[in-house]
Amino acid sequence: MDLEAERVVLMETSREWARAAASGDLERMLSFWSDDAVVMPPGQPSVVGKAAIREFVKRALAIPGFTIVWEPERAAVADGGDVGYMVERNRTTASDPSGTAHMQFGKAVTIWRKDPTGAWKCAIDVWNENPTEWALPVPVAP
Amino acid sequence: MDLEAERVVLMETSREWARAAASGDLERMLSFWSDDAVVMPPGQPSVVGKAAIREFVKRALAIPGFTIVWEPERAAVADGGDVGYMVERNRTTASDPSGTAHMQFGKAVTIWRKDPTGAWKCAIDVWNENPTEWALPVPVAP
Repeated sequence: MDLEAERVVLMETSREWARAAASGDLERMLSFWSDDAVVMPPGQPSVVGKAAIREFVKRALAIPGFTIVWEPERAAVADGGDVGYMVERNRTTASDPSGTAHMQFGKAVTIWRKDPTGAWKCAIDVWNENPTEWALPVPVAP
Repeated sequence: MDLEAERVVLMETSREWARAAASGDLERMLSFWSDDAVVMPPGQPSVVGKAAIREFVKRALAIPGFTIVWEPERAAVADGGDVGYMVERNRTTASDPSGTAHMQFGKAVTIWRKDPTGAWKCAIDVWNENPTEWALPVPVAP
């Protein structure tokens, strides 16, 4: 197995997911997680499984002015090519009641597993706040 | 390779690390991270490499009343046995200026790699706040 090629696929998958998030297409966004994925948001309980994640993402999309962009910083793949992980940088935006947009910067770790079709799916998704801003490209959907 | 045995070793390594943390022995605590490990604390920049992690842990140990305990929730190992990951639950304590101890609960993800000697070392260590308490055993050092 060409692990360097798999590493590049992981980086591209992260960028494709960011474009899906920019599109606002809920099902397309959800397709990147495995059915048994666990999302671990700061200050909230873990969100376990696709059905719960669907509701979690719906609630995020309902936040006035909500946007999220991210960029993978690096990716690594296990020797067997079945597990990989990435460190990512993100920025979310939400509007306060006066309509003013506020940005929050975060750092994320995602763990990926190959599904039976050979596609990488995110199995664990965790992040927290970063104290300083970082420049991020704005993904253009699709 | 017996992946189930490796999974159990990972769980035990996490518990052994928690006992090391309870011992207050800085070098013993540091031995669980790889030399190039990245620690990603909430609201702080990532801490990259053993030297920077040493200073990070020293600062934590200098916080009045600081304690940390954790328990692995689950572990998984890649087919090649070279990469593993865990989800953990933690609780930190710190004292305010009046001496009153305050607890904070967190959920963590750690990613592990086998070093050349065959020992698991933590390469990525990320966590965030959990909104509710959970019961955790207090590790007895050593």
